[in-house]
Parts: sequence; C-alpha cells; structure tokens
Amino acid sequence: MPEENTEVKEVKKRMPEENTEVKEVKKLMPRKEENSVFVGRRPTMNYVMATMMILNKGVDCTVKARGRAISHAVDVCEILRNRFLKGTEYKGITLSTEQLEGESGQTNNVSSIEIVLSPPK
Amino acid sequence: MPEENTEVKEVKKRMPEENTEVKEVKKLMPRKEENSVFVGRRPTMNYVMATMMILNKGVDCTVKARGRAISHAVDVCEILRNRFLKGTEYKGITLSTEQLEGESGQTNNVSSIEIVLSPPK
Repeated sequence: MPEENTEVKEVKKRMPEENTEVKEVKKLMPRKEENSVFVGRRPTMNYVMATMMILNKGVDCTVKARGRAISHAVDVCEILRNRFLKGTEYKGITLSTEQLEGESGQTNNVSSIEIVLSPPK
Repeated sequence: MPEENTEVKEVKKRMPEENTEVKEVKKLMPRKEENSVFVGRRPTMNYVMATMMILNKGVDCTVKARGRAISHAVDVCEILRNRFLKGTEYKGITLSTEQLEGESGQTNNVSSIEIVLSPPK
C-alpha cells in the first residue's frame, strides 16, 4: 500500500509535463485525429518521439504520410521498432491514393500510407 | 465462335513481342527472384509495366524498394491498381530494415518495403 501511494504521487507530478508534450504532438498532426501522427518534412526523431508517446499510453498509433514522405514514415516506424520500443508490432498497413487540389485548380493524385502500430505487450 | 478464333490469333501474333518485353523486365530485377520487381530510379511506368506483365501471368507479384524509392514503389502499385489492372489486391505489405555496407566499410541501416500484389480474379 505505501508503495502504491508514492506511485500515484509521481504520476500526479508528471501530469503538467505530459500536458505540454501532448500539445507538441498535436502540432505535428494537422488533421485533428486522435492517436495518429502525420509525417512531413520535420526531423525524423520528432515523429519517432510523437509516435512513442502515443504508444506509451498503451493504445495503437497510426502513422500517416503522403507522397515522398512515405519513405520517411517507414523510417520513423523502423527506427521506433528497432531502437526505442522493441516489440512494437505492425497491426496493419494501408496504401491508397488521395486527390489533392493543385495550384491552378486541377486535381493531383498522391499516394498515401497509413501504418497502424500496436504497443509492445 | 468466330470471334474467339480471331482472339486466339491475336494472342499468337503478340507472343514474340511479349518475349522481348520479358527480357526488359529481367533487366529491372537485379536480384534474380522470380515474379518480383525491384523499384529504383527509372521512370515509374517501366515498373508499372513490369509488374503488370507478371500479374497477367496469373501469379502474385512482389514489388520491392529501399530507402527513398519506397514512395516510388507505392506510386507504382497505386497507378497499377487505379489505372491498369483494376481489381488487383494487396496481399501483404512488409516493412523491414536492411543493413547495407557503406563506402568506408561502415554499415548503414536502410528501410525497405515488400508489397505482394495478387492479380484480379
């Protein structure tokens, strides 16, 4: 019982920090979808950390990317699995095509990937 | 019946051309693995055609790529599925990390993708 109490206190101490970190993660997600990370042009480690934080909550995380960032998204997942959260598994990988509106009103087809990661057990 | 006969003749006429095309496809596969296409820096349509020819035999085709070519490989599969062989399905997608030897003897980790496509039924 005393041990449990100290644990609860520690969790409470950590709460404010976690909140600021969660805000950072949200910046990385232009689409307001929960538990997903949208990979773009920022440094790889930013996305690795954002993904790791979601997985550390014990929930699945979806890593998304479009166009050239697709290879970047694969790097993010592989670095995470091999270096940071060993045992993370690929739950599902979806490839699709999205239509984006171009500068002069025409539509461009862009490939996209969605990688669902499940946390280590 | 007469229509079927003309179709058979057309197929026979096409045979010699197909043989030369198969040779081209083999050039695109540095690793001597059957029914797989290794995507690199050539024009996207080359790989789309190579993949389509394998799928037209009625067998599964594995599209492979490393590093930045991963997004290129996804493009190949999506263009094929949306424009050329509608009904082609993703049978499996594997992400992994390969160790390549660098110029000065050090090892570099490179992400890789293997996409198994199954022909339309």
